[in-house]
Amino acid sequence: MNVTLPTIEQAAARLQGVAVRTPLLQSAELDARTGARVLLKAENLQHIGAFKFRGAFNRLCQLNEQVRARGVVAFSSGNHAQGVAFAAKRLNIPANIVMPDDAPMIKLEGTRRLGASVRLYRRHHESREQIAAELAEKTGAALVPAFDDPFIINGQGTVGLELMEQSQILARRPDILLVPCGGGGLLAGVATAINGINQQTAVYGVEPETYDDHWQSHRAGKRVKIDGTTPTLCDALMATSPGELTWSINHELVSDYLRVSEDEVRHAISFAFRYLKLVVEPGGAVALAALLQGKLAFSGKICSLIISGGNIDASVFAECLNRFPEP
Amino acid sequence: MNVTLPTIEQAAARLQGVAVRTPLLQSAELDARTGARVLLKAENLQHIGAFKFRGAFNRLCQLNEQVRARGVVAFSSGNHAQGVAFAAKRLNIPANIVMPDDAPMIKLEGTRRLGASVRLYRRHHESREQIAAELAEKTGAALVPAFDDPFIINGQGTVGLELMEQSQILARRPDILLVPCGGGGLLAGVATAINGINQQTAVYGVEPETYDDHWQSHRAGKRVKIDGTTPTLCDALMATSPGELTWSINHELVSDYLRVSEDEVRHAISFAFRYLKLVVEPGGAVALAALLQGKLAFSGKICSLIISGGNIDASVFAECLNRFPEP
Repeated sequence: MNVTLPTIEQAAARLQGVAVRTPLLQSAELDARTGARVLLKAENLQHIGAFKFRGAFNRLCQLNEQVRARGVVAFSSGNHAQGVAFAAKRLNIPANIVMPDDAPMIKLEGTRRLGASVRLYRRHHESREQIAAELAEKTGAALVPAFDDPFIINGQGTVGLELMEQSQILARRPDILLVPCGGGGLLAGVATAINGINQQTAVYGVEPETYDDHWQSHRAGKRVKIDGTTPTLCDALMATSPGELTWSINHELVSDYLRVSEDEVRHAISFAFRYLKLVVEPGGAVALAALLQGKLAFSGKICSLIISGGNIDASVFAECLNRFPEP
Repeated sequence: MNVTLPTIEQAAARLQGVAVRTPLLQSAELDARTGARVLLKAENLQHIGAFKFRGAFNRLCQLNEQVRARGVVAFSSGNHAQGVAFAAKRLNIPANIVMPDDAPMIKLEGTRRLGASVRLYRRHHESREQIAAELAEKTGAALVPAFDDPFIINGQGTVGLELMEQSQILARRPDILLVPCGGGGLLAGVATAINGINQQTAVYGVEPETYDDHWQSHRAGKRVKIDGTTPTLCDALMATSPGELTWSINHELVSDYLRVSEDEVRHAISFAFRYLKLVVEPGGAVALAALLQGKLAFSGKICSLIISGGNIDASVFAECLNRFPEP
């Protein structure tokens, strides 16, 4: 199994009528501010409020009946957790999810509400990999990786496929595409789709400043592992090194990486509330933040970006709006 | 000039490429809760965060060059204000807007940011009609009515046209359509469009309990004027009687009216934050509230509704999320 435009198209066929075909939005305000023609792929409007359902469903479809009966295990701070839980529910597979006890409440509750068993662990004190492996061994359940897996990457790649189809309908071929980047699964899938469709679109990954493992890896020319003890609002992007498979793809296809500060993320969340009428979580807002802060020369360009998730606790949301009342 | 499916189609041609073709969204959570197949027309994603731009632009297009040079005047608590200001800006027409001093900040600031001159008045102490008439007389500007005008109604009717086209693509013909109702302009336009396309779709207006002038008028068989001093969060729906023209249409085409309480509105706003990832203002949330509260027998039906606006102050939004933390 590999990651190519045809394998992404196969994933799209599997997700047809199952995943939400999220809209590609435009905003006169955003165009006026940036001088660009902006296209926003709103994956916060996906099932479970994030793109993660796509990869999880595509992955779970591969399991045979015997494996399905034993269930699945995953570890995640929340969006992959909910993605796996929702996909498992649809396919009638029991799901065990290992989550950090500091995960956003909306993600913890969301995962439980979807019928998954949640095992909490203490971040920096316990190994989620070990807990998940033990759970898998005990129950015979299959581990569902968060990003470093071809089926997961192909599923996430369908975001890029749709984005290109939708931008073609608008007769606007993106010059630039900005993609939030944690482990690099969404980025790798989307970059593969875009590369297969239109090599003139330059793809950029966007990271929080404190979790810039891709930015550092790009400069080092190899996978770099960062410390990963610095806190960030972007709980969805707290991977400390690029995945092996994702990096082998992103190393080839991604032009460069951009970094945004915590306050730039808060500002983007407040902007989205005020002008886009969208609820965006911190990790889902990094590409929008990079655009709003002019991290590249966007003016005159057709600039597309992915809003990758919207699962944010009300208290954090309110804090962002208070901090940037007039963005 | 009248209000018919063809005149709405003419308005749609004028708005083509100018207004946002807002998405028709679906939500697995909403379907699971209601037992219905729900289709949400997200007009909070329209320019200025509300449907009002459609009618305003369609109206302003009718003005000749001489009138345009003298400018336009409108009065509104905010969404019509911003709709007129945005349309006027696009057509290079000076705009004067009369707004109550208790209008939401986001609407006041939004109107000013769009380049309109704002004249504040004290609700219950001054007559906005008189102020607007004086402004119009002084400057020779044309008054742009908020709802009781065929061009305004035709513009708003394009929401219904799009909704039916989009639901046809999904092969889901709505059994029910719920529409927020203030003066009745959106309702009249949408009901006309739906009646011209598919008479099997039952159209309902939804009002705040404290501003139920349409509900009362429907029962009385004639236009009723209510007191209108009771406060409501739904600043966009504070008309005290149906419009003359809108009522003549709605009286014919609307099945009935539903009423929602202030807390039902707050709950719907919180639900939209948590599950739909949409920012919805109180007046824009009444149809969603009616659905969530089961004001009709929705189960088994294809139920469409309009989310008509998303201009809400951060403090009011936070209050709704706090009041209903787990909707």
